Amino acid sequence: MKDVIKTLHVDLGARSYPIYIGAGLLSNADLLRQHIQGQQVLVVTNTSIAPLYLAKVMNSLAGLQAESLILPDGEAHKTLATVNLIFDKLLASRYNRTTTLIALGGGVIGDMTGFAAASYQRGVNFIQIPTTLLSQVDSSVGGKTGVNHPQGKNMIGAFYQPQCVLIDTDSLSSLPPRELSAGLAEVIKYGLLGDADFFAWLEQNIDALLSLQQAPLVHAIYRSCEMKAEIVATDEREKGCRAWLNLGHTFGHAIETHQGYGHWLHGEAVATGMVMAADLSMRMGWLEQENLTRIADLLERAKLPTIAPADMTEDDFISYMSVDKKITDGRIRLVLMKRLGEAFVTSDFDAKLLQQTLQVHLED
Amino acid sequence: MKDVIKTLHVDLGARSYPIYIGAGLLSNADLLRQHIQGQQVLVVTNTSIAPLYLAKVMNSLAGLQAESLILPDGEAHKTLATVNLIFDKLLASRYNRTTTLIALGGGVIGDMTGFAAASYQRGVNFIQIPTTLLSQVDSSVGGKTGVNHPQGKNMIGAFYQPQCVLIDTDSLSSLPPRELSAGLAEVIKYGLLGDADFFAWLEQNIDALLSLQQAPLVHAIYRSCEMKAEIVATDEREKGCRAWLNLGHTFGHAIETHQGYGHWLHGEAVATGMVMAADLSMRMGWLEQENLTRIADLLERAKLPTIAPADMTEDDFISYMSVDKKITDGRIRLVLMKRLGEAFVTSDFDAKLLQQTLQVHLED
Repeated sequence: MKDVIKTLHVDLGARSYPIYIGAGLLSNADLLRQHIQGQQVLVVTNTSIAPLYLAKVMNSLAGLQAESLILPDGEAHKTLATVNLIFDKLLASRYNRTTTLIALGGGVIGDMTGFAAASYQRGVNFIQIPTTLLSQVDSSVGGKTGVNHPQGKNMIGAFYQPQCVLIDTDSLSSLPPRELSAGLAEVIKYGLLGDADFFAWLEQNIDALLSLQQAPLVHAIYRSCEMKAEIVATDEREKGCRAWLNLGHTFGHAIETHQGYGHWLHGEAVATGMVMAADLSMRMGWLEQENLTRIADLLERAKLPTIAPADMTEDDFISYMSVDKKITDGRIRLVLMKRLGEAFVTSDFDAKLLQQTLQVHLED
Repeated sequence: MKDVIKTLHVDLGARSYPIYIGAGLLSNADLLRQHIQGQQVLVVTNTSIAPLYLAKVMNSLAGLQAESLILPDGEAHKTLATVNLIFDKLLASRYNRTTTLIALGGGVIGDMTGFAAASYQRGVNFIQIPTTLLSQVDSSVGGKTGVNHPQGKNMIGAFYQPQCVLIDTDSLSSLPPRELSAGLAEVIKYGLLGDADFFAWLEQNIDALLSLQQAPLVHAIYRSCEMKAEIVATDEREKGCRAWLNLGHTFGHAIETHQGYGHWLHGEAVATGMVMAADLSMRMGWLEQENLTRIADLLERAKLPTIAPADMTEDDFISYMSVDKKITDGRIRLVLMKRLGEAFVTSDFDAKLLQQTLQVHLED
């Protein structure tokens, strides 16, 4: 059986690049090598991913000056000090300006490797091989790279585009089920914010996605990347709609901040946040009750939480949401829904209805 | 008396910016503030410059949330660790995405502050106030920012353009005479590589420049920045001519490497290197003997060395020049002169004539 590869072209003028999506791409040396210009390649990965996939990628690079660097796993290591380990390796092996850096791993590896590529000798080529569903649908588009600082997440970085993104859906077979679900939260987000048909398709296919069936996975990833690319491209002209990507995030950040990052996965917090945003949209008279139910049902079928942590209070939410960076002029701004498949940004909602939303989504 | 401000517009499409050159600009609050968009400004400077000029700049920023950060002085501190001090300060004072970073100092401060601006929250605004002649004519154009790594100079950085460059010629009055001369070496370079008329003008005005007369200083800085801007712009289309900017640098780097960086100033090494390049060009039959004499004379009048350090041998030069990064295919490539005011890049020169050039420029 021949595997199908879908290709999405992200159109950014001179910085345009393709996203390849399909099964078995990690072993597709031809695809990878057509985007490598020089002889020098450094594959950056972590201790969890290296035993699973590094050998496949290195095999695809046979004949080149290809080395690998295995970093510790986890968000705690997303620091300037870890990026400096990449620079140390590049210089110790005398990597030059025609080097290609390959990020093999999830969002943390992609963010750090991308920033290293942006900064090494003022910019070398960069290829992303995201291995988690979240990084496949989120980091593949937008060019955001960077590291955390003790006083803030993603505070140091660059906008830097890759030569290509290679998404091997087979790599999801090693993903813990909780992380698969967390990635699906972001996929479902694209249905909610801009495409009711895609939402309906997800309702039909959620079980197929959870059981990692290839064709639905390829479609879901393709459509998510495509929608993000459209939104990011539009935002270069008319400011604002990139904020739609934060649907569920203001509520979600409150949960993440309260629990401490890492206790709830980002996608889990966003899932609960999206239900809260949908609930408030319903109370404002925009979203039909029936569609609120559909949203909560789909997220639950994707094995995602839709109720806030037991120890959080209404005041906790208001307090965390008031210091969110999306605040303007002291008013909380939220991404809400005009209807299923149509998001918008507003600070024009009834505070009492927000209270009601919080009350019904807090555990007793 | 009204001071004259000359303005050079560096044309880079959406990233175009003005370079203002004149006396007393540090006290010209209007000029500075029209390029500051938000309310938050951080002035980055060093322990040598702060006592001289920081108060003037801070006065120009009255009413804004303006703070300063004073870094240790010197190339030894041009590291990622020092740039991290800038990030620490920005985050401790909760600087946001509309922040403007101002670099007040020489090339080291400009390179580090520019890189911090490129990387803080993936890019904030940046204004350069270069206070040395070298940084005024070299770092004002080209967008190169970055830091050193223990294993290589300028290995980590970004191309990042400022909002504007403010060159106050008064700031040269505090510059040590050796550094003034080293800056003049780069100014003279522009005459040699592309403008014989400017070279002749420099012959007429070198004493006025050494005694810091304002009108000639403004003209020399303006013309140098203008030529660098033309060359950098041309190189975006036809690769190669940016290499002209390295006239004298391959010989010069051999001297700097042999002596250890900092013993000879960069401009001093380049001055000697330019005489050697001119000498070889003369031996190849391209440059007239008379013009070789004019070049050496002008550099000597600018109080620059034209003979290599006493302890260097011919073999030292050949050895260092063979590992220079401008090597292609194992052949030494040099920027030489077809005639006064016309540089080109070639590896097509007679090795015996290079030996002769080295012999006559080594001290006995």
